[in-house]
Amino acid sequence: MSEWRMDVLTGRWVVIAAERGGRPFDFKVEREETRAGPCPLCPGYERETPPEIAAYRAPGTAPDTPGWRVRVVPNKFPAVRGCGCAVVAAYGVHRAMPGIGAHEMVIETPEHVRGLEDLDPEQAVDTLRMWQERCLALRHPSWVEYIQVFKNVGRAAGASLEHTHSQIMALPFVPREVAAELAAVRAPEGCRLCAVVRHELAEGSRVVVAGRHVVVFAPFASRFPFELWAVPLAHEGDFARANRAVLEEMASALRGALGRLARVLERPPYNLVLHTGPVNRAAGDFHWHLELLPRLTVPAGFEFGTGYYVNPLPPEAAARYLTDDNSR
Amino acid sequence: MSEWRMDVLTGRWVVIAAERGGRPFDFKVEREETRAGPCPLCPGYERETPPEIAAYRAPGTAPDTPGWRVRVVPNKFPAVRGCGCAVVAAYGVHRAMPGIGAHEMVIETPEHVRGLEDLDPEQAVDTLRMWQERCLALRHPSWVEYIQVFKNVGRAAGASLEHTHSQIMALPFVPREVAAELAAVRAPEGCRLCAVVRHELAEGSRVVVAGRHVVVFAPFASRFPFELWAVPLAHEGDFARANRAVLEEMASALRGALGRLARVLERPPYNLVLHTGPVNRAAGDFHWHLELLPRLTVPAGFEFGTGYYVNPLPPEAAARYLTDDNSR
Repeated sequence: MSEWRMDVLTGRWVVIAAERGGRPFDFKVEREETRAGPCPLCPGYERETPPEIAAYRAPGTAPDTPGWRVRVVPNKFPAVRGCGCAVVAAYGVHRAMPGIGAHEMVIETPEHVRGLEDLDPEQAVDTLRMWQERCLALRHPSWVEYIQVFKNVGRAAGASLEHTHSQIMALPFVPREVAAELAAVRAPEGCRLCAVVRHELAEGSRVVVAGRHVVVFAPFASRFPFELWAVPLAHEGDFARANRAVLEEMASALRGALGRLARVLERPPYNLVLHTGPVNRAAGDFHWHLELLPRLTVPAGFEFGTGYYVNPLPPEAAARYLTDDNSR
Repeated sequence: MSEWRMDVLTGRWVVIAAERGGRPFDFKVEREETRAGPCPLCPGYERETPPEIAAYRAPGTAPDTPGWRVRVVPNKFPAVRGCGCAVVAAYGVHRAMPGIGAHEMVIETPEHVRGLEDLDPEQAVDTLRMWQERCLALRHPSWVEYIQVFKNVGRAAGASLEHTHSQIMALPFVPREVAAELAAVRAPEGCRLCAVVRHELAEGSRVVVAGRHVVVFAPFASRFPFELWAVPLAHEGDFARANRAVLEEMASALRGALGRLARVLERPPYNLVLHTGPVNRAAGDFHWHLELLPRLTVPAGFEFGTGYYVNPLPPEAAARYLTDDNSR
């Protein structure tokens, strides 16, 4: 018997249809062989990207030359760009505004590897530190309401470049997914994500990594097989202000969870999405976290029609596969 | 320069990033060759499906034997099934209920063809008539709040079976996409979809098919390249009560639009989604329509993080390609 489950942060319903799915090898993943580098994101090819915005690089090395560990450049084909007033204009019944925003690319390592799971520990922490730095730098224009950090790995997850990188967009409004969560973290009975974290740690069946500062679990109303959330235990609204200890443990927890996913599922395509507090609100108003969405199923007519999801794998089973001794 | 556009029905923002896309041949479609039948949905293989629920068939032919033109069976791997009370139970902070609902499959023709565009005119009308019949039959249990009709064509659009078919699900709540639209069709200034239809017909640049009862246009805030909406001109809430003239023109308009898409894009994968009024509301409260979503781009981290979309093709360009004389 399947079960309807509600995500208490967004009100989104998901049907966990266990009869449709089953074991990890039932999820066909089209394997992508990593091509050998070098590619336009590799050292020595810095001229292939727009000029760099920021980098962690060896002392004495010049911008747009080798010597960097993490490098940030404008997206070569930006979805949004430029500053301006976020003034909505009417075209008859329609509403529009100029495509203002920023769209940057964070190249996470000089090595031509595929995902966050391939980074060494320090490199992963540096990536998260760079996300923080760019979140702080991008929030200054008055029209910036939200900074969206995300990562696409694998063609089925929308990646067009193989060399591991993440993307950061500054947006002139608070996205509707975040707006829905805002109400839940401000619920009269207290932050619902705090309550979920307490529940998961006490119950245990969906927990994949439990640390001192961070927990990784398969959410009760997972949209996708092997969906994982990585959440700081402390109620912190602003990812950009997270301290070094939390950041280090988050990097390690993400690498651990992605490593387990890679072993159980043979390196699936995935999206990784940061949810953090809107720019122009009190930091205590949110509870930042990362959502990891393996792309093993295809959202189709049901998902686009309703906004809800069919997930063939119960999150309890996903957590069991990922914490099985053989996958450690 | 790209442009932010808002869908006035849902408040969803889309960035039309024309610099990223371009001409139809820029959208790589993985061609899928149609295999020769027969398959489990072909005549003579009726035993491969669960027993039929309804069919249009030749006089004197028995259920679950050849002789049918349109055939409805339960989905062999239903996401939801069975009746019950839609009572939400609490598991600590979490909320869930049994996976009640119905999940049926409409086999649209005995011929082993791929999409609605391959049906002859009468067969297409019969398919829509069968959707109406099942929408009426499925709405009776008191827990049914919504009937979702949808269609997945091609592997990239989530189809696991090739033989053209649609799916119908009875749901114990109103989906959030429909709930968002409900507010817009009841706006104090009048139905916003009626206003959009008037605007599109007057403005013309996004219209693909303009008929006496139905208009097909590329929506102003299209999420996907070549997204099309097929909307009855009259404000009608309940698809299941649409009259024969509207239904015939809708079938013809869909076949026409899909035929043009197939020519311009070499038969892309697509989802087709019906939006109709919730079951337990006054019919006048909605404006039913169909949304056709070609799957040429992959929703990725930005889309899942924000609930918004990046679309590299302006809908005005999509309409131009589809109405170019060469594609008629």
